[in-house]
Amino acid sequence: MNYIGIDIGGTNLKAGLVDETGRLLATRKMKVAGIADPAALAWTIHVLSMDLCHDFGCGLEDIVSIGVGCPGAVEIRGGSILYTCNLPLRNVPLRRLFHQLSDLPLYIENDANCAALAEYYVGGGRGSKRFITVTLGTGVGGGIVHNGKIFHGSNGMAGEVGHMSIEMNGEECPCGRRGCWEQYASANALKRQTARALSEHPDSILARVIAENDGHVSGQSAFIAARQGCEIGQQVCDQYIRYLTVGIVNIINIFQPDTLAIGGGVSNESDEQLLLPLRRQVAAHSLPCNYDKMTRIVKAELGNDAGVIGAALLGKNKRMI
Amino acid sequence: MNYIGIDIGGTNLKAGLVDETGRLLATRKMKVAGIADPAALAWTIHVLSMDLCHDFGCGLEDIVSIGVGCPGAVEIRGGSILYTCNLPLRNVPLRRLFHQLSDLPLYIENDANCAALAEYYVGGGRGSKRFITVTLGTGVGGGIVHNGKIFHGSNGMAGEVGHMSIEMNGEECPCGRRGCWEQYASANALKRQTARALSEHPDSILARVIAENDGHVSGQSAFIAARQGCEIGQQVCDQYIRYLTVGIVNIINIFQPDTLAIGGGVSNESDEQLLLPLRRQVAAHSLPCNYDKMTRIVKAELGNDAGVIGAALLGKNKRMI
Repeated sequence: MNYIGIDIGGTNLKAGLVDETGRLLATRKMKVAGIADPAALAWTIHVLSMDLCHDFGCGLEDIVSIGVGCPGAVEIRGGSILYTCNLPLRNVPLRRLFHQLSDLPLYIENDANCAALAEYYVGGGRGSKRFITVTLGTGVGGGIVHNGKIFHGSNGMAGEVGHMSIEMNGEECPCGRRGCWEQYASANALKRQTARALSEHPDSILARVIAENDGHVSGQSAFIAARQGCEIGQQVCDQYIRYLTVGIVNIINIFQPDTLAIGGGVSNESDEQLLLPLRRQVAAHSLPCNYDKMTRIVKAELGNDAGVIGAALLGKNKRMI
Repeated sequence: MNYIGIDIGGTNLKAGLVDETGRLLATRKMKVAGIADPAALAWTIHVLSMDLCHDFGCGLEDIVSIGVGCPGAVEIRGGSILYTCNLPLRNVPLRRLFHQLSDLPLYIENDANCAALAEYYVGGGRGSKRFITVTLGTGVGGGIVHNGKIFHGSNGMAGEVGHMSIEMNGEECPCGRRGCWEQYASANALKRQTARALSEHPDSILARVIAENDGHVSGQSAFIAARQGCEIGQQVCDQYIRYLTVGIVNIINIFQPDTLAIGGGVSNESDEQLLLPLRRQVAAHSLPCNYDKMTRIVKAELGNDAGVIGAALLGKNKRMI
């Protein structure tokens, strides 16, 4: 039996057919902008499901369930999207709308939680019992899987580790607080830190690396410059890893997961430049603990597919717990 | 049936006989310093159990189990004390030692977790499903009860919310980090903040309040002065509540408990001076959420008895989950 996962992003809606082992058998992608209203969203999910089955050569009767991952707040029991940050979806009773078209079970979940579930089953969290993902992207997202269950808190909104303040009088965050971790440790924050170093050191290797990239500051610029022996680039990387460490140690001191996976674009940097110095600093700053009981810090493995795979595996998760 | 709870503190060992509803039926107290070695600790627990039964007029056959709460790290499965901060107890196989004297089941748990369990069953967390206590004492302790179970993390050390950094370049903490929440929000931190205000404003009402207390700066000094119209005292209280807010909002954004109880000496201040302004600030800074789904912030209700009651109720907890 197979599962269908739908990952609703800010720009694209991705759909995938996934087997019991989390393998992607077929995928489809479309622009979210083309979906006019909630009823059209339900219809799109229904049609994509049939398309995926057609692509792979199976029937809808081979599908256990459909899972939908979506940014923002969802109501998992009722199967509704409450609100999303970037999309005009508010209080959408998606399960009800979908069941006017199909009898397949439909589950809804926050997209960061879907990604965590995918990594838990078939990615960096395989074999973990207390697992946390930290995704370094536009913001810093978090997903917690505890004893095989997504950790929702009392209202479905738990896991917003990016909105943990690590500098109470620090930089302003759109959430209204100051010093939120994502203002320091997201890919966007790294770009800002890199741009600041660029303006202060226009003659550095870092500046040349950025110039060669058509003047575009990316999350990779500082790492590339550091590899070329740039002291300024290295300073940006070192400071960024310090920011990353503060939040990760906070998470470990509170949750003590056995495994913590970092994902998002930044996590693609080499182990020598990112994972190894991060592990050293986290070990140095966490509360003392027997070596064999320390949180293992790993990379997320599924990249951009985590959202679709995790959404699909929501159905498997419901059957197993 | 009844339960026995033992709370091993830095100075005193408290023992209590507790019924199914968490009511204390009898108590005993002794100096920890009198206990020479691990075998003596096991013997003391055995004798105190018989004493408590004698005091109340029941027999050991009416006791379901004995629970021991202890500061520091414990190994709950094996029933051992791994280490404690203030006591010379390292790798003590307490259950094994105790079972040379008695057949009663014996459970061991971190003392902050015991306090959380007590509040969950019979204190400020009654009726909660996702409950967190934050205890403002010498340090800042935390205990998490999730769906009726103490949240241990993968190694039994979860819940150390006091060692979450809220100011990454801030004050040094003995744990080795900078800016740990307990350096700002513990009762000891409040005393330091009060002492600093005193030295800067020797002519304030706050200074008079402290002088009237034989020059002793307490966690209450600033609150007393503020009630007498002291601007300096009020500033200390306001700043302290801001520190408290930062950590509590972090906890809420990550865990979204339905109820969070604050305990420890500081929590005895009046609602007007502590709980109400704290609730206002937490509501203003937490991620937006439907009003009826917001974390309820309450006071812990059991005071110094929470440790003994929670240790006793470990046995009830084991039977129910």
